[in-house]
Order: sequence, then structure tokens, then C-alpha cells
Amino acid sequence: MTILGIDPGTTRIGFGIVHKEGSAFRASASGLFEYPQDSHRFEKEFTSLIATHKPEAAAIEKIFFAKNQKTALEVTEMRGVIKFLIQKQNIPILEFTPLEVKQYITGYGRADKKQLETMTLKVLALAKKPKYDDESDALAIALCGALAYPMHKKTKVTIP
Amino acid sequence: MTILGIDPGTTRIGFGIVHKEGSAFRASASGLFEYPQDSHRFEKEFTSLIATHKPEAAAIEKIFFAKNQKTALEVTEMRGVIKFLIQKQNIPILEFTPLEVKQYITGYGRADKKQLETMTLKVLALAKKPKYDDESDALAIALCGALAYPMHKKTKVTIP
Repeated sequence: MTILGIDPGTTRIGFGIVHKEGSAFRASASGLFEYPQDSHRFEKEFTSLIATHKPEAAAIEKIFFAKNQKTALEVTEMRGVIKFLIQKQNIPILEFTPLEVKQYITGYGRADKKQLETMTLKVLALAKKPKYDDESDALAIALCGALAYPMHKKTKVTIP
Repeated sequence: MTILGIDPGTTRIGFGIVHKEGSAFRASASGLFEYPQDSHRFEKEFTSLIATHKPEAAAIEKIFFAKNQKTALEVTEMRGVIKFLIQKQNIPILEFTPLEVKQYITGYGRADKKQLETMTLKVLALAKKPKYDDESDALAIALCGALAYPMHKKTKVTIP
């Protein structure tokens, strides 16, 4: 089973591809969309990513509003665009709150960013962290999707 | 000059087409997109609306967060989709706060909904209000765009 994870942002968007094979998980790709504001380019690149990896589902973080309202508005608009592009490909969308992502991966909803990253790398058996934080975040969301899919059911995590 | 006005929503989206001819304004169409959640259908209908009316610019209301956070999130996501579809057609986007819409049309930022509607119908020389509020709202936003375009410069309103 292949899950696409997306970390939405306004200036760049992280993605990660996670596979579930039996009870093991592995990452096969991660990267950035660097021009999400260019509609034509972003749609083309996004569609091409889906065509390459053919994910069964896409996982995306649900955002709640906090500090910077302007940024939150822009990120939410971008989430709308991403969800629209996923829907166009008839791929189911899984949405998780930051708390849920932490809960699924570390078993602890109040884990910090570092703990989440460490656990994500361990479960995915990645020797080193990806270049950009947006990629690590997207892999964590993809892993959460892989753990939760198909029904937000919890799956036992095996650390290699 | 032709302006498309959009009133974003989650279950339906109002649109209105307003023309500026000299110092006069008139509406030529208004209606609803009733299935904005169906990506394929919405994109097809939206693209067809643009192809029919060929607007020079599109005006959309900027939303600020208040009462219902869940609705606000969904409407903001939909705004992202609408802006994405407009950008794909290479049409400039004008964004106005509710206060600006009222200010441009009635000259008074704290005008109520009824005053805004009455003034919009007068300026557009419409004998009766459209069937749905979403259409009236979209026509008000289109009129605001027509008044403000190209540079949010105020234009004298002539009431027929």
C-alpha cells in the first residue's frame, strides 16, 4: 500500500511517499513543490507525482488557527487547492490534526517536533533525515496515513 | 469592462457578471454553482462560465475568521480552489473585505446587508433581486470590483 503525505505551505509544499508492506513501512521518495503559487506548474507537477507513485490514499495535515492569521488563511487556501487536485485524481483524502500525527507515530499526542522526527526516521528505517523539514513533516504525515488507513484504525508499529 | 464576482461558500457558490460601460454599470448574469465539492464538475462549470463571459478580472470576498471555525476553514479552502481556477485562466484576482465591499458600494463600511443589496440593485438598474442571496452577494462583489478596478481606485457611482 502506498500513501502520499503532504505538508502544505504557502511558499513551498513538502511531499513524501510511504509504503506499507506487511507490518513494515518504508519511504521511497520525498521532495518539495517549490512553486505552489504558479497554478499551471503546480498542477502539472502534482499530477505527475501522482502518476509516478500511484498512491492509494493521500494524507494531509488539518490546520487549526493560532498565531499568524494571514499565514493560516494562505495555508488553508493552499490546502483547498491540494485537496482539489487529489480529488480530481479520485484518490481518498485522509486528514489528521498535528495531535493525531503525533499520537499515531509516537503514541503520545504531546510529543515534540524532534521526537516525532526521530520516530518517523526509525519506523521508516531512514539512515538520515531528508534535506528539508517540509519533507520530514510530509513523511510523518504519510506514515500516519499508512498507520491509519483504511479506517483510521491503529496498526502496530514495527521498528526495524 | 466585464467583472466576475464570486461569493464563496461550501455547499454552493454564487457568481455574478457586471459590466462597466462609461460611468454606468449593469449586470448580465448571475447564478449558482451547486456542486463545488465535485472537483471535475466544478472545474468544468467554472471554466465554461469564464469562456462564456470573458471577464477582465474576478472579484472575491476576503474572509476573516469569526464565529464558526469549521465553516470558516471550509470556505477558505474553497476560496483557494476558486482562486486557483481563476489563476489557471490568467485572470487577475481582486480581493475585498466585507467592509471594503460596503464602502465601495454604499460609501459606508458599516452599512447593513439590506442597504448593500438595495444599493447594488439600484446601481445595476435591476428591477428585482435575484432568486438567491448568494447571487446578490456575488453581484455586489462584482460591482465592487468594477468600481475598484484596475487599481482599487474609487470611481464615481452613477445611479440610473
